[in-house]
Amino acid sequence: MSGPLPQGATVGILGSGQLGRMMALAAAPMGYRTHIYAPEAGPAGRVASAETVAAWDDVEALRAFAAAVDVVTLEFENVPVDALEVLIHAGAEVRPGVRVLATCQDRVAEKTFLRDLGVPTAPFEAVHSAEQLAAAAARLGRCIVKTARAGYDGRGQAKLESPADADAAWTEIGAPAAAIVEGFVPFSAECSVLVARGADGETRCFEVVHNVHRDHILHTTTAPMTDPAVDTAVAEALATRIATELGLIGLLAVELFRVDGPTDLRVNELAPRPHNSGHWTIEGAATSQFAQAIRAAVGLPLGDPRRVVHRAEMTNLLADAIDVALPTWGEPDVYVHRYDKGAARPGRKMGHITRLWR
Amino acid sequence: MSGPLPQGATVGILGSGQLGRMMALAAAPMGYRTHIYAPEAGPAGRVASAETVAAWDDVEALRAFAAAVDVVTLEFENVPVDALEVLIHAGAEVRPGVRVLATCQDRVAEKTFLRDLGVPTAPFEAVHSAEQLAAAAARLGRCIVKTARAGYDGRGQAKLESPADADAAWTEIGAPAAAIVEGFVPFSAECSVLVARGADGETRCFEVVHNVHRDHILHTTTAPMTDPAVDTAVAEALATRIATELGLIGLLAVELFRVDGPTDLRVNELAPRPHNSGHWTIEGAATSQFAQAIRAAVGLPLGDPRRVVHRAEMTNLLADAIDVALPTWGEPDVYVHRYDKGAARPGRKMGHITRLWR
Repeated sequence: MSGPLPQGATVGILGSGQLGRMMALAAAPMGYRTHIYAPEAGPAGRVASAETVAAWDDVEALRAFAAAVDVVTLEFENVPVDALEVLIHAGAEVRPGVRVLATCQDRVAEKTFLRDLGVPTAPFEAVHSAEQLAAAAARLGRCIVKTARAGYDGRGQAKLESPADADAAWTEIGAPAAAIVEGFVPFSAECSVLVARGADGETRCFEVVHNVHRDHILHTTTAPMTDPAVDTAVAEALATRIATELGLIGLLAVELFRVDGPTDLRVNELAPRPHNSGHWTIEGAATSQFAQAIRAAVGLPLGDPRRVVHRAEMTNLLADAIDVALPTWGEPDVYVHRYDKGAARPGRKMGHITRLWR
Repeated sequence: MSGPLPQGATVGILGSGQLGRMMALAAAPMGYRTHIYAPEAGPAGRVASAETVAAWDDVEALRAFAAAVDVVTLEFENVPVDALEVLIHAGAEVRPGVRVLATCQDRVAEKTFLRDLGVPTAPFEAVHSAEQLAAAAARLGRCIVKTARAGYDGRGQAKLESPADADAAWTEIGAPAAAIVEGFVPFSAECSVLVARGADGETRCFEVVHNVHRDHILHTTTAPMTDPAVDTAVAEALATRIATELGLIGLLAVELFRVDGPTDLRVNELAPRPHNSGHWTIEGAATSQFAQAIRAAVGLPLGDPRRVVHRAEMTNLLADAIDVALPTWGEPDVYVHRYDKGAARPGRKMGHITRLWR
């Protein structure tokens, strides 16, 4: 791809959840069409120009999708690498790229990549059995075990207070082929920084934000992060270095633990896509994370990521909290987003609210 | 309809241009689906959940559309009243309502309604022939004749310096069945105010803005209007009164001439829908005009219309100006909108740019 895609070009998006939906809604004002590919029909397909509902191993459907779009990007990083290879062989340009995804799909590969870069993380070990887990727990002390692949929002994770918990924890996470054990990090806060990197190597960071989780699911994000304070320059330097080393073209969310003071930040997790902790940017930043992801994918100059309000606070609406939010529609500076997902299962992200202080 | 439509409900939109497109893009974050009905496929259909391409007199298609949607609204007021009647007979709730549309579709009816309300306008007369036009021009002096129906962006209009121009002017506008002649108003500026009115009768005004036309097509809109100054309270009172008297449920654009000083405002034209002069609200106001139109249509409380930036300036991009805008993508506080319309015919609105001063 040389130069930005012209208007009317089609951005292929893998996945049909709320992130793909908000990417499609950000692409449209720029004049781009979107085509969703996902194994099940979802909320993104309802706002896209086209939708393919097919399995990740449906080679014919993948080839047809590759032929129908001008660039491919994604809303979640766990797209099977085989599917990506089919798309690339069929001539599709996949952004952020297979190397980034291969790294971010595997927690062991991701943490190893970070360690090799000298980026601070929790201490970790790769394990492949309950016995290895018990041995690692003996070395790491209080720790958490996570499947190497395909976990999110706390799924596929278990805590261990001591090696005696190893058998139960291994069973709880489904006795996977591979897992990562991470020593407990006594963090004082969780935060994240989103970095965009363009095809020309330019990088722009959204400001570091404060995340509060409940039951392993993001509950609120606040921008800016003030209490406790985090050194924005340190966070942004980490994110920029990671994005550059990965050769990312797109958006990367870097989840961080703040440990001892504003500069002691350790990377918890990477996600090469728009991220729940960036939803506040829709109203709170000069460019939204979704517009930024599309700009990177289509080859436009990156947008200005600066915060343009005094303060923004995003709260996820899980399950039927979406109905409780109804009275807030009339309040000024409150923005209710609903994802049109259908059934409100417990724990399911149905929408979010952003409150601004201008 | 009692209470707001639930998420997942479908808003039917008549028309498939850029206004319908931006309405659909505003409906989606609120969790609503959209279904476009238009005689030709257009840019709105590409971002809607569903699209019906059928003629305005296709009764079966209209009935199926009415059955598929939960409320009907529109992006342009010249939908044939017969089509609206079919929709209403089929059970559809049409907002803003047939009475509003019947008034706004006919320039003579519109101006007569305003005169009966005591709202200041240009002096006008209804005419049905070149002879009547010449007689009216003799009374009004320098004047402009417009077809009573279906003109926009300067089409179907001709100027007369004297009664001697009547034959040529009548021919130029296509010798319509009915026309309106308006005495020339020596205005010092053109401006507009957008008012929303909810199903419960609540009204909210977007601030009065300054419009500059080129070749009868809106060129720039600036908010706030400072030079020359306009009395915002006078403008808003006029708009609110008109909306209330029309029984509007939705959005109404009121185009005004500013004549002698900030309070001497005369209504030029009404449009019961989002309006080109309101595009600045997407980035410049707490609620965009498109979100406001959807809120009114679905029965949600109206949003806060206040300007949230120091200044906003919207410029239309006609024809291939859309390509000239490319270098501005990298500038902060510049928002380029492209409508994905395809061929860039001369004079065609292909997009717009909004510049903010925060």
